[in-house]
Amino acid sequence: MTQPRLKHFGWGREGEGLTPAEEAFVLGRIEQRFGPQASGEVKPPRLEDIKLEPPRLDPPASLPFCSTALYDRAAHTYGKSFPDYVRGLVGEYHSAPDVVAYPRTEEEVAAVLDWAGGAQASVTPFGGGSSVVGGVEPRRDAVRHKAAVTIDLRELGRVLEVDKTSRAARIEAGAFGPALEAQLKPHGLTLRHFPQSFECSTLGGWIATRSGGHFATLYTHIDDLVESLRVITPKGVIETRRLPGSGAGPSPDRLLIGSEGILGIITQAWMRLQDRPRFRAGGAMQFADFFTAAKALRAISQAGLYPANCRILDPHEAFNTGAADGSVAIMVLAFESGDHPVEPWMARASECCADHGGKPDRTDTADAHREGAAGAWRNAFIRMPYARERTIERGIINDTFETAITWERFESFHDKVKAATERAIVEASGRAGQVTCRCTHVYPDGPAPYFTFHAAGRHGELSAQWQTIKSASLDAVIANGGTVTHHHAVGRDHRRWYDRQRPPLFAAALKAAKATMDPQALLNPGVLIDS
Amino acid sequence: MTQPRLKHFGWGREGEGLTPAEEAFVLGRIEQRFGPQASGEVKPPRLEDIKLEPPRLDPPASLPFCSTALYDRAAHTYGKSFPDYVRGLVGEYHSAPDVVAYPRTEEEVAAVLDWAGGAQASVTPFGGGSSVVGGVEPRRDAVRHKAAVTIDLRELGRVLEVDKTSRAARIEAGAFGPALEAQLKPHGLTLRHFPQSFECSTLGGWIATRSGGHFATLYTHIDDLVESLRVITPKGVIETRRLPGSGAGPSPDRLLIGSEGILGIITQAWMRLQDRPRFRAGGAMQFADFFTAAKALRAISQAGLYPANCRILDPHEAFNTGAADGSVAIMVLAFESGDHPVEPWMARASECCADHGGKPDRTDTADAHREGAAGAWRNAFIRMPYARERTIERGIINDTFETAITWERFESFHDKVKAATERAIVEASGRAGQVTCRCTHVYPDGPAPYFTFHAAGRHGELSAQWQTIKSASLDAVIANGGTVTHHHAVGRDHRRWYDRQRPPLFAAALKAAKATMDPQALLNPGVLIDS
Repeated sequence: MTQPRLKHFGWGREGEGLTPAEEAFVLGRIEQRFGPQASGEVKPPRLEDIKLEPPRLDPPASLPFCSTALYDRAAHTYGKSFPDYVRGLVGEYHSAPDVVAYPRTEEEVAAVLDWAGGAQASVTPFGGGSSVVGGVEPRRDAVRHKAAVTIDLRELGRVLEVDKTSRAARIEAGAFGPALEAQLKPHGLTLRHFPQSFECSTLGGWIATRSGGHFATLYTHIDDLVESLRVITPKGVIETRRLPGSGAGPSPDRLLIGSEGILGIITQAWMRLQDRPRFRAGGAMQFADFFTAAKALRAISQAGLYPANCRILDPHEAFNTGAADGSVAIMVLAFESGDHPVEPWMARASECCADHGGKPDRTDTADAHREGAAGAWRNAFIRMPYARERTIERGIINDTFETAITWERFESFHDKVKAATERAIVEASGRAGQVTCRCTHVYPDGPAPYFTFHAAGRHGELSAQWQTIKSASLDAVIANGGTVTHHHAVGRDHRRWYDRQRPPLFAAALKAAKATMDPQALLNPGVLIDS
Repeated sequence: MTQPRLKHFGWGREGEGLTPAEEAFVLGRIEQRFGPQASGEVKPPRLEDIKLEPPRLDPPASLPFCSTALYDRAAHTYGKSFPDYVRGLVGEYHSAPDVVAYPRTEEEVAAVLDWAGGAQASVTPFGGGSSVVGGVEPRRDAVRHKAAVTIDLRELGRVLEVDKTSRAARIEAGAFGPALEAQLKPHGLTLRHFPQSFECSTLGGWIATRSGGHFATLYTHIDDLVESLRVITPKGVIETRRLPGSGAGPSPDRLLIGSEGILGIITQAWMRLQDRPRFRAGGAMQFADFFTAAKALRAISQAGLYPANCRILDPHEAFNTGAADGSVAIMVLAFESGDHPVEPWMARASECCADHGGKPDRTDTADAHREGAAGAWRNAFIRMPYARERTIERGIINDTFETAITWERFESFHDKVKAATERAIVEASGRAGQVTCRCTHVYPDGPAPYFTFHAAGRHGELSAQWQTIKSASLDAVIANGGTVTHHHAVGRDHRRWYDRQRPPLFAAALKAAKATMDPQALLNPGVLIDS
């Protein structure tokens, strides 16, 4: 591992961040909205200034891959949610793990679980730590747990086996996106799962959280790309059979996918791969407004064309990312194939757009998916997470939430959720903020709307202000029929609303299933369920 | 309900069966293989000659939709597996339910569950009774259950709500295929889930067993067409949220889909629908042999073209169904769309076939998917289930099993499974039989092979002979990495092999989940798990 280590605060690795030009753009947009900065900037503490409690337990000599060093404990205290940043900014690290383990084999994973069980320590599985829902912060149940251990899977990052005939590979769960793709590339294959966190998240994390990726249609979630799994639980190994399809009882994989580390630690998966694309067609389309763009989105989705990219941005979202001037909604549309030219597909999708007044974006070029509005949006999309650690220094509350809803309710759902969020911003911060929306994934029966909000907060009150806004948003999402998350997971931040969405008997079944695999309730206490 | 009632023995409804011409074809093929009939024919008893034990309990007056009549009990004793037919043929009806309930509302379903719980009766949910895996035969656990009640859902057969915008409908679980489609037709929509049992099976049965349908690619199982579910359990109702997609924890739907009636009784589902197809292209292709056809199948599947039909038949299978002369393998290929012409898709698929020497079948016509080899196969496919109640009278053992396997193992898997089945036929019957194969569904990472076998059995020994063959087949399937079932379900007949395939900790989790929903273990004892 010659690359820099992950930052203990902020997005990405040490040395990474916004370029001066990007920072100027981001802060310019903020000042344009909220005026020049009122209160002073707050800077996060340097690593060496962070004070941690002494660890409550020491790893035994038989587990030499464990650490109690300051960096390891601090860098595994939080994920990347807004309240995580708020606490990191003021140097609050009470929930730091006592020990961080970096197992290099499945046997070492099992050994840590055994040791943690004996020591009555809670166990938090950790991939890239990019959780935005409170999914990786160590938590102890005061009765059950005497300490907290985090298991970081980063040493399990290899592609172990490639089956070119079936286009599948057996991959260790700790593989980060870029390293995973680099290992597949010599075989001419690709997973093509590119969540926004691609560079800072792992295969195991994607599977544990039902990550949403590159494909806007069809293979939207990682779920469909999983061929089989290996999971280490406190009660032993679960290995599912490698199959292209099965009808043998409820799918074991589907109980483990999305289990967010509460049932066991995913160590390997056989993943379904794609040929590297050789043919592409696409571009950006302009629409009069967001709902008109959504009508075209629905038409394309229901036509059975399955574009790789098919995302719509409302006019404000398009403006904020530099994809348009704020007067039009944008659709980013792309077909790709490793097998055949895709012009007939693109031609029909363009007709669907034209039926709703969609016009090709004039800034597009031949290599349209990289340039013009589409390219601007794509670039902004990847760089976006770096902005928040900067804007929070100025007291800006910037967060997102994503959901899904069937088409017949989409417009009223959008309006109610947006209005509730806008009202809550005024309530929390005393002034108007901004709520924008895009649709990141789309299904024949409905889209996955993704809301972004900005509010001018006040240092010292950021957590409470954020909670007011977040609560109002998710109350509206749940009351109006949406899901608490489309692809960011539940963690602990979404529990209150997840509990309203999930059938109570399913919660009971999940608790019962957990008790068979993790009878001491070591794993991720408070995530998804209380055990 | 003006249509005739289901037969108490055999496939379909009273009055249905092979035409004289079909019977002559089927028996001709049998005599061609096994010579003229040796032993005498055995005819099944007439309904009035079937002797049942008196019912062990009487339904209360508050449940007037319950019956203890001879027809109701006899017609709900078995599904349609080969050992079911063997026992029906000789009038063995020991496992007949004591009471058959035909609830007309969810409240009545719940009332039957309550009553059965109080009476300590096992409960078997029943859709169309087309199970070929011992999934609907009432079973009592001698310790737990004093009687057996079957709940037939046929009175819950309505389409309750249609959402044209999202292309979805809320449908009661007891809807049979044709009635379901007839109710959708005025809305221009279709579920397009056409399992071989389409006319004799129900939506709830499809969901409970992860049925495989019309689509050879992409939406192969019913799983993907389920938007949300309502399930009545002994502990109350589970209703999942209607969503186009979600990432909120492990999917509740996926625990219920494939649960084969052990967790609760599916009463309603919101189903994802399709526009009725307006554009079609397709036909049959000839290949030198089965494995060459499979190479083309893999190419099409991995090209991302998603044909609605894409099935290959080995030369014997093609011969037996009248699709070819026995010298060539056949691919049945069809694209369909409600939105756009599909010629570019078909053109690329044809190239994939040509790359492997595939030639268009010359008997094809313009309306190719209905005529020629493709049409012959389609017709034989739908009529096939009617043949077995006739051939068993002659002591012919005729059964099928289906599985799935990744591509890199497909050829050796096929050969080993086929050889093991052929050897077992000789062992069981003293003479050679026939084992043929087709692939019914296909995924980028592997096909779903579907084996059919014929053997000349002897009356009085049919069950044991069948068990010998079935055991050898499934031993080979499991030992060589396949799944015990791709879309026929597990029931009780597949339990021995399912238990080897399924991770033990998943079995424990499933038992624990069942205990939360069905703590008295009333529902379908012995199916999927022992509780």
